[in-house]
Amino acid sequence: MNLSLNNAKAMKGQTEPNPLVGAVVVNHNRIVGVGAHLKAGEPHAEIHALRMAGEQARGGTIYVTLEPCSHHGRTGPCAEAIVKAGIKKVIVATLDPNPVVAGNGISILKNANIEVLVGVCEEESRKMNEVFNKFIVKKQPFITLKSATTLDGKISSSTWDSKWITSEDARKDVHQLRHENVGILVGVHTVIKDDPELTTRIPNGRNPIRIILDSKLRIPLDSKVVTDQKAQTWIFTSKQYSVDTKKRLEQLGCKVFITSGVSRVDLHDTLTILGEHSVSSVLIEGGGEVNASFLAEQLVDKLVLYIAPKLIGGKQSPGFFAGTGIEKMADAIDLAEMDIQKIGKDFKFTGYPLYKA
Amino acid sequence: MNLSLNNAKAMKGQTEPNPLVGAVVVNHNRIVGVGAHLKAGEPHAEIHALRMAGEQARGGTIYVTLEPCSHHGRTGPCAEAIVKAGIKKVIVATLDPNPVVAGNGISILKNANIEVLVGVCEEESRKMNEVFNKFIVKKQPFITLKSATTLDGKISSSTWDSKWITSEDARKDVHQLRHENVGILVGVHTVIKDDPELTTRIPNGRNPIRIILDSKLRIPLDSKVVTDQKAQTWIFTSKQYSVDTKKRLEQLGCKVFITSGVSRVDLHDTLTILGEHSVSSVLIEGGGEVNASFLAEQLVDKLVLYIAPKLIGGKQSPGFFAGTGIEKMADAIDLAEMDIQKIGKDFKFTGYPLYKA
Repeated sequence: MNLSLNNAKAMKGQTEPNPLVGAVVVNHNRIVGVGAHLKAGEPHAEIHALRMAGEQARGGTIYVTLEPCSHHGRTGPCAEAIVKAGIKKVIVATLDPNPVVAGNGISILKNANIEVLVGVCEEESRKMNEVFNKFIVKKQPFITLKSATTLDGKISSSTWDSKWITSEDARKDVHQLRHENVGILVGVHTVIKDDPELTTRIPNGRNPIRIILDSKLRIPLDSKVVTDQKAQTWIFTSKQYSVDTKKRLEQLGCKVFITSGVSRVDLHDTLTILGEHSVSSVLIEGGGEVNASFLAEQLVDKLVLYIAPKLIGGKQSPGFFAGTGIEKMADAIDLAEMDIQKIGKDFKFTGYPLYKA
Repeated sequence: MNLSLNNAKAMKGQTEPNPLVGAVVVNHNRIVGVGAHLKAGEPHAEIHALRMAGEQARGGTIYVTLEPCSHHGRTGPCAEAIVKAGIKKVIVATLDPNPVVAGNGISILKNANIEVLVGVCEEESRKMNEVFNKFIVKKQPFITLKSATTLDGKISSSTWDSKWITSEDARKDVHQLRHENVGILVGVHTVIKDDPELTTRIPNGRNPIRIILDSKLRIPLDSKVVTDQKAQTWIFTSKQYSVDTKKRLEQLGCKVFITSGVSRVDLHDTLTILGEHSVSSVLIEGGGEVNASFLAEQLVDKLVLYIAPKLIGGKQSPGFFAGTGIEKMADAIDLAEMDIQKIGKDFKFTGYPLYKA
């Protein structure tokens, strides 16, 4: 199963909107086939592993990180392929959260008198596909909020100077995050202030779709995200948008989506629209107010925070979670499964928000 | 030397204003004596170790964590005692920063034809006595600033609710810090708002002297630090103090010190006065403004920050380093020798501020 997980993880960033899946076929204590899902539309992991095994699959055991599928999607149902190949035993890490599979794959196998064991390395497999697990059920992207602060919690000085908080190593790590996410989201204020490219600066990296929240379409028409053609730019606006500017932006190659928000961009609408366009993951690199909106509406699934070992101070210096905040300390958002890692001189905290009522 | 260091460290909190020192005497590959400095006014570590060794010290080697003293203080000079005991070789971790010793101890030994080696486990010995090393040279206390924040850098919510940020384990750790420091310092605002005891809640713990910065003597006469008699309370004020209130406070058992500050308490004066009263270490548990004053005046020697894995948010929610802060990110205060430790659910960061011009 560890080999299956490793093969699955190696494909990170290239299988969307499908999950990472790995499979290994064993017969008479020898590995006779390995496989992984490489790309949406191509064969599933089990099929690759069974093909490699060929006739040697008969009577063997398959270790697969996700429940074999039962539906006729872009490829045939893997559960049936496993039956046909003559496999005797199937070891599964996690059930498929996809409502069209959800236990049906297991049923097909059991009905064919195959022995099935579920739950081996379950936690690891579930976490590996945290993006898929949300997307397939909620049809909205998995949201990662990334920020970088000083040890005293500031994203810039009182004069808005923020270059640089973290070291080069940490900033490189952020580009890996951009590569792994389908979209990157900021508020229009960041575009106006910093004119960022929002691209991935790693070799062969995949540039995410640039998603800008802009309630009044104030985005400068000469900003890099509008003009540089390095990646798609999708602008989400409110009912206050200007028809003329929308037309101009579309002529320049941007997509403009009008949400139901009267004066602010409606975030739920935004995520629903992104889901409809197969955007399964979004990295938020917003300022304090955009971050606060997503946290207040309990839409952040994962937090990645880089903390630099330095102090900048200042009552007026902004933090990464602005807005009005939460009133009572007892109601604070707890972070589960906190992980801390040293990256260069900085610390990388990863956690999953647990929202209270 | 490790045994010497361990014996020295075991006396933490009971040797002030003297440093922690340990010594081991070895002869013919056998430990024949161990010693540590236990309490100011009592024999030094070397004397204890030499006494235990008795005649077996002759021809032996002594491992001592700090340069043997050369001066006639409350006890005789250890360097001479080592010579008299017939020791052949002395291994020293660090030189004594005390200007009245500073190499003289080594000279006495060398003049007696004893072989001397300095610098074994130097870093560890130096750090163990960081308080003493500053105090003996600058005649001012070593300042540790302690705070506790959420992961987004807040010491309370926007409604000033702060109970509790950290878990019980971290709060217990703070009581250990209080035990280890001679004084604890807060601003009068904290006394007015929270009416804290500022005592050590660990069994057999030593209560620090409670040091209150109070420019106008606004401290409530019925506050716990004034009335509870659990520890001494020293109030530092400015030229704006009220003579009547000063008299009342003194009648209630507090000491009142008038600094040269015209409208605010002068911090340099405060530290000088504390030094003159043998206060070698102070723990600051101030609010954001008191912390900012000490950081802005570059008076903090060590930072201890507990970070809880939770988010509270809010543009108006205070951080631990308020004031105006530093203007440029490039001028931020870097923290050297950062150490991170997990305490219960929380993270404890320790570091040493490196101030820029």
